[in-house]
Amino acid sequence: MRRKEFAIDEENKEELEAFLSEMSFGFLGTISEDGMPSVTPLNFVYVNGAIYFHGSRIGEKMKQLTTNEAVTFAIAKEYAVIPSYFSDPLLACPATAYFKSVRFDGHAVIVDDPHEKATVLEALMRKLQPEGGYKTIDAEDSDYIPRLKGVAVVRIDATQTSCKFKFGQNLKEPGRQSVTQGLAERNLPMDAETLELMRRYCPHTPTIGD
Amino acid sequence: MRRKEFAIDEENKEELEAFLSEMSFGFLGTISEDGMPSVTPLNFVYVNGAIYFHGSRIGEKMKQLTTNEAVTFAIAKEYAVIPSYFSDPLLACPATAYFKSVRFDGHAVIVDDPHEKATVLEALMRKLQPEGGYKTIDAEDSDYIPRLKGVAVVRIDATQTSCKFKFGQNLKEPGRQSVTQGLAERNLPMDAETLELMRRYCPHTPTIGD
Repeated sequence: MRRKEFAIDEENKEELEAFLSEMSFGFLGTISEDGMPSVTPLNFVYVNGAIYFHGSRIGEKMKQLTTNEAVTFAIAKEYAVIPSYFSDPLLACPATAYFKSVRFDGHAVIVDDPHEKATVLEALMRKLQPEGGYKTIDAEDSDYIPRLKGVAVVRIDATQTSCKFKFGQNLKEPGRQSVTQGLAERNLPMDAETLELMRRYCPHTPTIGD
Repeated sequence: MRRKEFAIDEENKEELEAFLSEMSFGFLGTISEDGMPSVTPLNFVYVNGAIYFHGSRIGEKMKQLTTNEAVTFAIAKEYAVIPSYFSDPLLACPATAYFKSVRFDGHAVIVDDPHEKATVLEALMRKLQPEGGYKTIDAEDSDYIPRLKGVAVVRIDATQTSCKFKFGQNLKEPGRQSVTQGLAERNLPMDAETLELMRRYCPHTPTIGD
């Protein structure tokens, strides 16, 4: 059960999509033939509401997916390690980290349609190589036809999507004030963005100087 | 089966440990009660050859681990997206990414010994809060005794550790020369380090200017 105060809802779809565009890779969870869990980092792209990845048609991963199609895919980014002394001068216990994470639970579908494959791989290229410098991937292009046949593309049909954006939503005053002040003073490269996200997700976070 | 040219072996232990010290979080793979794979991002610490993490004693994660102790833990860092045009002026196919990833497969052991818990949590603090600013975590300290009881610490006893450091080991000339030249010219913040890693893992990578 994910704590409600950490969840984002349907209204935050746009922010979820921006996060998925920004993140180049995630972690695929599968179950191996021997019943053991397996986790593999993979580049991915989010197209028409689904996570897609690609790979070798003959690798271990594809073998696993044909044996057991149940999958999960997790993407996470850490924004800030929050040191204990931001809120407690003595004990280590309040130390924590603020992060965004998203998880898709569902099943894997191996994509056979060359047009869907081309659309997905083109979207992946635009994401990871936005400067271009290659011929558009097209299912009708004779240069790409054999290559599209040779690559495996997998779609995750998710039955559940969970988001956990943790930015101090559970803090009470004066703890929240101490953390915001600590971040403002520390000023590491991502601290200003972390403060902005704290303000967005916990509307009562004071602006420093208030 | 992981391709041999991408593997690092026992001799690279020191490098593996440096990588695990540098990375603040990884992804725990488990199997839920309903038989579905689950993946959770977690801060971790590597102590005496084992991955450890901590969490709430009453959460979903601990429930899963007591139902099915089979786990995997994956850590990955992307160094460079390698655009297709570094090696092919026309087609998108050679686009790839260079990364380090490590995976521990085994089973989870819930740690009851307060001394082991204290050692692990202190190591985690030193990793994530190296500047200090807290009282050392000690199993005999009356401030920490109840807190150590209240937190769950989990050790992964790994039966297999796999490393995949992918830095163009499979490239042949002149492809390798094109990629090294492309990275040197692009010069993004991590490109110099990526070139250094290419040279380390593929000893025949030419130095630019050779």
